[in-house]
Amino acid sequence: MIDYKSAGVDIDAGNEAVRRIKGLARGTFTPGVLSEIGSFGGLFRLEPGRHADPVLVASADGVGTKLKVAFLAGRHDTVGEDLVNHCVNDILVQGAKPLFFLDYLATGRLSPDVTEQVVTGIARGCRANGCALLGGETAEMPGFYAEGEYDLAGFIVGVVERERVIDGGRLAPGDALIGLPSTGLHTNGYSLARRIFFDTLGLKVGDPVPELGETVGEALLRVHASYLAALAPVLEEPGLVRALAHITGGGITDNLPRVLPDGCQASIDKAAWEVPPLFDFMRAAGGVPEDDMYRSFNMGIGLIVGCARADVDRVLTRLGPVPAPGPRVIGEIVGGRREVRYR
Amino acid sequence: MIDYKSAGVDIDAGNEAVRRIKGLARGTFTPGVLSEIGSFGGLFRLEPGRHADPVLVASADGVGTKLKVAFLAGRHDTVGEDLVNHCVNDILVQGAKPLFFLDYLATGRLSPDVTEQVVTGIARGCRANGCALLGGETAEMPGFYAEGEYDLAGFIVGVVERERVIDGGRLAPGDALIGLPSTGLHTNGYSLARRIFFDTLGLKVGDPVPELGETVGEALLRVHASYLAALAPVLEEPGLVRALAHITGGGITDNLPRVLPDGCQASIDKAAWEVPPLFDFMRAAGGVPEDDMYRSFNMGIGLIVGCARADVDRVLTRLGPVPAPGPRVIGEIVGGRREVRYR
Repeated sequence: MIDYKSAGVDIDAGNEAVRRIKGLARGTFTPGVLSEIGSFGGLFRLEPGRHADPVLVASADGVGTKLKVAFLAGRHDTVGEDLVNHCVNDILVQGAKPLFFLDYLATGRLSPDVTEQVVTGIARGCRANGCALLGGETAEMPGFYAEGEYDLAGFIVGVVERERVIDGGRLAPGDALIGLPSTGLHTNGYSLARRIFFDTLGLKVGDPVPELGETVGEALLRVHASYLAALAPVLEEPGLVRALAHITGGGITDNLPRVLPDGCQASIDKAAWEVPPLFDFMRAAGGVPEDDMYRSFNMGIGLIVGCARADVDRVLTRLGPVPAPGPRVIGEIVGGRREVRYR
Repeated sequence: MIDYKSAGVDIDAGNEAVRRIKGLARGTFTPGVLSEIGSFGGLFRLEPGRHADPVLVASADGVGTKLKVAFLAGRHDTVGEDLVNHCVNDILVQGAKPLFFLDYLATGRLSPDVTEQVVTGIARGCRANGCALLGGETAEMPGFYAEGEYDLAGFIVGVVERERVIDGGRLAPGDALIGLPSTGLHTNGYSLARRIFFDTLGLKVGDPVPELGETVGEALLRVHASYLAALAPVLEEPGLVRALAHITGGGITDNLPRVLPDGCQASIDKAAWEVPPLFDFMRAAGGVPEDDMYRSFNMGIGLIVGCARADVDRVLTRLGPVPAPGPRVIGEIVGGRREVRYR
């Protein structure tokens, strides 16, 4: 005799997880939310009259193999915040502010405790960004994931007035590029970073790294920064920002060209900012070629703002809180092929 | 020396996958789409003036362990359609029509060919439902997934006028429940089904099942039905439909109560429809208790429509195409505890 539980799916554990998630989600609700968690779909009302010509901006993302570091450290309450902040930045760079977020959490055997920790991080990230956790899916998939492991994906929807969409199209030679510091690896480059720390150096997640003044886990689990609070006041002034690039997988090398118009090249001055010790340490320990470093990691720059040279001071003055050591001009737009050149 | 590719991540394979995905996604674009795949976020314009008081309805879902059957069969072009249709139904039951869809595809080692097959199914599902494939994330996560395996999640956003939201709140004793046939297991109950077919019976995915007149793989990979075309004409008439329940994980037993108001019980007449042979075969082969069958599988009913008894004929007349053997009244609302009782 086979019932569903003996087939590896525990509906009661699922219900317990849902009960805990509901409470956490409710704490993120904004006035637009019309539904409870547990409906087939989440309902979000666009405030009537608020938007003249609303454009919805949506993005899907994962945490990548940063999750493996969380598994090793047994720490599950930060990856959700990573995920939310990553998604928030991905729509922010087109000028959008977040409305709501949904998560997908898949695991082999559902642990209500781990689920609660993960969703606690998601809820914290949502609250900090004024974004409602509108729904999600928690999937128990026996045989898909190793014991104690899970995958996590997020989906975000935000809104921007059509005339306020930022796409880089107005960038022109002479414009300035301002870099906002990252807080660590963010959520990219972890396959390479894990290889260096765990395989090449043979370190464990709790081992101290004297060169960094912290443990491997502390260095690698630092939460992905959200740039919403920094940029919201800047975006209040129409036209001030000409381009925004979120530096994710592919680094500055692959991400900045995504917002360059034809005939515009980004000239980046590597001497304009100090690469944080974490990146230099990995380069030396792994013998990673310089080009690969800039194509794999953010190298200390989490987001790049493009604006007219004459507007740099206005942007810097208007910026909200930015991670240390603060914003700085790291390059400029020149005529040329749509790519990044370092000098 | 370690570079990114030797760490298990192949950026070039990723770029090739993205190139193929772009073409497939473009074929789904509707007039609202303002962006190309590859932007940080996908842009979708709500047609100005079209919606007086728009409510966005969003849902996240996965395919569950139906994916394992696809892996065994080496067939990757149907699970994407399953996913889209599942998501479409989840927002349809609140009255919403789909605007756009995003996917999350995670795998250990990225195969551009398999990715293309998966996204081909997603794009087919999107086109059939008039839904734009607005973006997504393809994640290569070495060490997370077994060779040749992947996980797949979907995220959908639709829109409904606030006064047209369907939530079951107007259901009352005496109302009728109309069942729309499913096309198979849809995407739920696969852990149990796989246990029965592959473990208990020791069958292979290509083995014929004489009782079913098809192979195991054919029976288990049948695509999840979308009920959008069936219900769209019914939803044109305001107030005609009082409740809609998508029968997913948990079966009729757990899903129908999600739309019952307090004091309303669903009385379901099991004799009102013929349970398809697939379900009877699994019950007999696995010795699965009857209650577990109705709590694990859809038992041949994919979606339930609640309406006033006097409106049954109007609903049946207006319904668009429905899977064979067609719609039928399968029960009614009676006074009592918020639950399903079978008779």
